[in-house]
Amino acid sequence: MTDNVKKQDNNHTVFIGPKPFMNYVTGVVMQFTTQSANEVVIKARGKFISRAVDIAEVASKRFLENSVAVKDIKIDSEEFENKEGKQVRVSTIEVTLGKK
Amino acid sequence: MTDNVKKQDNNHTVFIGPKPFMNYVTGVVMQFTTQSANEVVIKARGKFISRAVDIAEVASKRFLENSVAVKDIKIDSEEFENKEGKQVRVSTIEVTLGKK
Repeated sequence: MTDNVKKQDNNHTVFIGPKPFMNYVTGVVMQFTTQSANEVVIKARGKFISRAVDIAEVASKRFLENSVAVKDIKIDSEEFENKEGKQVRVSTIEVTLGKK
Repeated sequence: MTDNVKKQDNNHTVFIGPKPFMNYVTGVVMQFTTQSANEVVIKARGKFISRAVDIAEVASKRFLENSVAVKDIKIDSEEFENKEGKQVRVSTIEVTLGKK
């Protein structure tokens, strides 16, 4: 996870990692305010899931109150092989914020 | 958070805290299997949110595959005053698992 704000074709996505908390909040808020996004998807895996929820809550309730709300939340699992060849499971979350 | 399994009137709820991971998974699975719950709500706050998602995924996909699925996910914030009288915000999650 090297970028904290990645844009896909028709889709504004922010991947949550270990950078300072406000970087991500600003990233989300800017997509709505300066890039006219109608929806922003906040994605995270593993231990960063708690942070993703914090960022969604702070962005929508403190910074974009009255204009943006949580539209959808999905959780899932990814399975992959680690360096030792062992099968590992990690949880994922996607929180979609959208204009009201 | 002293109890890992609390039952409300018509509602099976598991609060996620710092106990061993499998305690909670077993708690959720048992509500469905031995207590005939139709729905179980997994609740967590702050840093335990990531764990709540892990527990929901492991319970529904590994232990109760084909019989239980994620029905609803809600996130919210709680504000309270800490010991120093400072206003603090904490995120919360509620994952509802239900019989298919």
